[in-house]
Amino acid sequence: MNNEEFDPCHSIKVPFKVIEGGVTAARGFKAAAISCGIKNPDVTRLDLMMITSDVPTVTDAAFTTNKVRAACVRVSQLHIKDSDTRAIIANSGNANACTGLQGIHDAKAMCKATAESLGVRMRQVLVCSTGIIGMNMPIQRITPRVRELADILSPIGNDDAARAIMTSDTKPKIYAIEVPIGKGQSFRVGGIAKGAGMICPNMATMLSFITTDAKVSKDELKRAMRFAVDQSFNRITIDGDTSTNDTVIVMTNGQANAPAIKKGSPEAEIFRCALQKVMMELAKMIVSDGERVTKFVEIRVRNARTQSDAKKAAEAVAKSLLVKCSFNGSDPNWGRIIHAVGYSGARIREEMIDIYFSGIQACKGGLTAKTPVADLEKVVKEPRFSVTIDLNLGSANHIVYTTDLSEAYVDFNSSEYSAAVHAKRQKGLV
Amino acid sequence: MNNEEFDPCHSIKVPFKVIEGGVTAARGFKAAAISCGIKNPDVTRLDLMMITSDVPTVTDAAFTTNKVRAACVRVSQLHIKDSDTRAIIANSGNANACTGLQGIHDAKAMCKATAESLGVRMRQVLVCSTGIIGMNMPIQRITPRVRELADILSPIGNDDAARAIMTSDTKPKIYAIEVPIGKGQSFRVGGIAKGAGMICPNMATMLSFITTDAKVSKDELKRAMRFAVDQSFNRITIDGDTSTNDTVIVMTNGQANAPAIKKGSPEAEIFRCALQKVMMELAKMIVSDGERVTKFVEIRVRNARTQSDAKKAAEAVAKSLLVKCSFNGSDPNWGRIIHAVGYSGARIREEMIDIYFSGIQACKGGLTAKTPVADLEKVVKEPRFSVTIDLNLGSANHIVYTTDLSEAYVDFNSSEYSAAVHAKRQKGLV
Repeated sequence: MNNEEFDPCHSIKVPFKVIEGGVTAARGFKAAAISCGIKNPDVTRLDLMMITSDVPTVTDAAFTTNKVRAACVRVSQLHIKDSDTRAIIANSGNANACTGLQGIHDAKAMCKATAESLGVRMRQVLVCSTGIIGMNMPIQRITPRVRELADILSPIGNDDAARAIMTSDTKPKIYAIEVPIGKGQSFRVGGIAKGAGMICPNMATMLSFITTDAKVSKDELKRAMRFAVDQSFNRITIDGDTSTNDTVIVMTNGQANAPAIKKGSPEAEIFRCALQKVMMELAKMIVSDGERVTKFVEIRVRNARTQSDAKKAAEAVAKSLLVKCSFNGSDPNWGRIIHAVGYSGARIREEMIDIYFSGIQACKGGLTAKTPVADLEKVVKEPRFSVTIDLNLGSANHIVYTTDLSEAYVDFNSSEYSAAVHAKRQKGLV
Repeated sequence: MNNEEFDPCHSIKVPFKVIEGGVTAARGFKAAAISCGIKNPDVTRLDLMMITSDVPTVTDAAFTTNKVRAACVRVSQLHIKDSDTRAIIANSGNANACTGLQGIHDAKAMCKATAESLGVRMRQVLVCSTGIIGMNMPIQRITPRVRELADILSPIGNDDAARAIMTSDTKPKIYAIEVPIGKGQSFRVGGIAKGAGMICPNMATMLSFITTDAKVSKDELKRAMRFAVDQSFNRITIDGDTSTNDTVIVMTNGQANAPAIKKGSPEAEIFRCALQKVMMELAKMIVSDGERVTKFVEIRVRNARTQSDAKKAAEAVAKSLLVKCSFNGSDPNWGRIIHAVGYSGARIREEMIDIYFSGIQACKGGLTAKTPVADLEKVVKEPRFSVTIDLNLGSANHIVYTTDLSEAYVDFNSSEYSAAVHAKRQKGLV
């Protein structure tokens, strides 16, 4: 699948090399994780992690736009405002959302314990949580363990950290690259992520922590961050439709053996595209590992009148349940696709629309292309394929990544709250 | 479930009586249906129907806002513009959508055959279709049968007509009332509808044909229609999100033994609320009979800042897949509800939000209300219940009707196109 026309970085030569180490691949970062029994005191699984930089950082973050924001999001938004960040502490098993003042106290207590263990200021710590909404954090099982967590911080702690933020994810999401710039010089960018709940991509908490040893200014980081998030996580997490806890954090500490990246320089473009590359790979891992997902589908809209039209059309198709059901059944139902394009709000001319499944034409000028259905079925039976919708009205393109909707998803999501409450009740916790 | 605060008609006394006859309950209307084998020539089921008025009518219609409009919608929009309507012809089994110029020819041919059989002008006929998208109509099996259909028109033809527009509906949707006004005088309003595909209420074709013998002007009918559709079908068919074929038609023929309804009179209000009553009952039947639905849920938003905020919040909750999954699992997961309210775009204050399941409080001021979960589960285990979200910010209310999302739905919707094409191929039709 060739996405050149959808990738603003395709003309930028980023001669990167994929490396190990994820969030600890960049120089001067450490990580660790422990098991606190946050979701269930009887189950041993990593559920509390920490990432630190040895030196002060320049850090930027993107938070959920949901008006119901978790306590940890509120506290992190406050902390990132006026301080250089030294550490992230994050847990899975409880989202600390809809937990009121107690939630704020708990999120602050996690920051305080982290700051004390590391000898930094509380405002230098960001906090993230993911898990069930509306239940207080079992904070008494968390804060007393933070020093122990800080004690095992390690430059090879990445894999544990990646596992500790998983909820219904089936595998950790880790990616890192090294980018040579100049003679024998390079910077590294790496990160971890968690996702899942991908029926409507935006409905699940998405966390991603990225570190880089590149030397960049706050302004340049902000610009690069906005660009890279828009090209990656925003292609799966649709605007205004995010969960209570979604957070992406990028920490830069300048420890690379490379000069500072100057505004407007070729290196600035390379940095931006390197950040995009890491975020994009993590975003794709999130989609592929969506809850009970059997298909990974690229929805590409071509030749829309405007960028906004291209985006509207792609997102409407990517979110349509009837479209997702037909992907699940390997059914090349282009009628449902054109129907979603029709209600998307994008300007279209029905008689101009062409639709392709991985390049094989299903609809031509709004009508059936008369391709043998067996040829189309062969494509949609694959676990990965693309749907291209050519509006033939202009030159704006947009791509979105989506999945099928499976029966198993519905089953899986039918009784979370009851199950969680019953489990706690059995243990005398509520 | 008391919906007074959500019903602008609750203070209008409409002393109606439920009567038999649906679309032929009103005086001077006839209907009939036959089997043409539109979907499958080997299967005998009613799939072509006609409704006629003995005398000229005043007719209004609401059509889909989808930019991909079926050929029948285009033709009906043209025909209703400048002529009094005498007949509706409608088929199930093929939507005549994404069928280009051939589709327009076919839709016109259906109108022409109807006009010739009845001795009226072609422009006096409206045409509707519902079924699969992107396949040409088997018009050679339809037009030669229209005269036969006209020949069996009958004042008791309602039930056949209601059955002939069904697709994945499990039962016909029929409702009619008689409304006394003045001494021994009354008018009647009745109709039929088809729906289904209710995962996202708006994704399925919705058709409804309503007749009344009240004597109303075109202007008054337009006003009443706008009001009644907004209070009923628009509560299940969300704005801008309609299918390629959605159509609601109201025919009035003034054959009641009652005086003309004057603008601004108490009778005009009664007429409006009577029309709303019929549409609302049909709308609720559509939701209850949604594809593989096991729950009927009223989403009520109270005390929003504005009407628009109330609507946004109610629709976001009603459309949320995670919310619908939890309904399916009888899981009183208020966290998912508040999450959907948070991304709805409505102005909220998290700490002001109260959430109730059929009056039992689950969330108080954005926090768990500490109601025993068994009490909440008891409610959501019922096949019908309400979710009330009190935003406590203003005085605007909105109600939307929704359903759960079942595993069976996903299965059912996974292979429509392939199955249809394969069936046709086996018969040598494509």
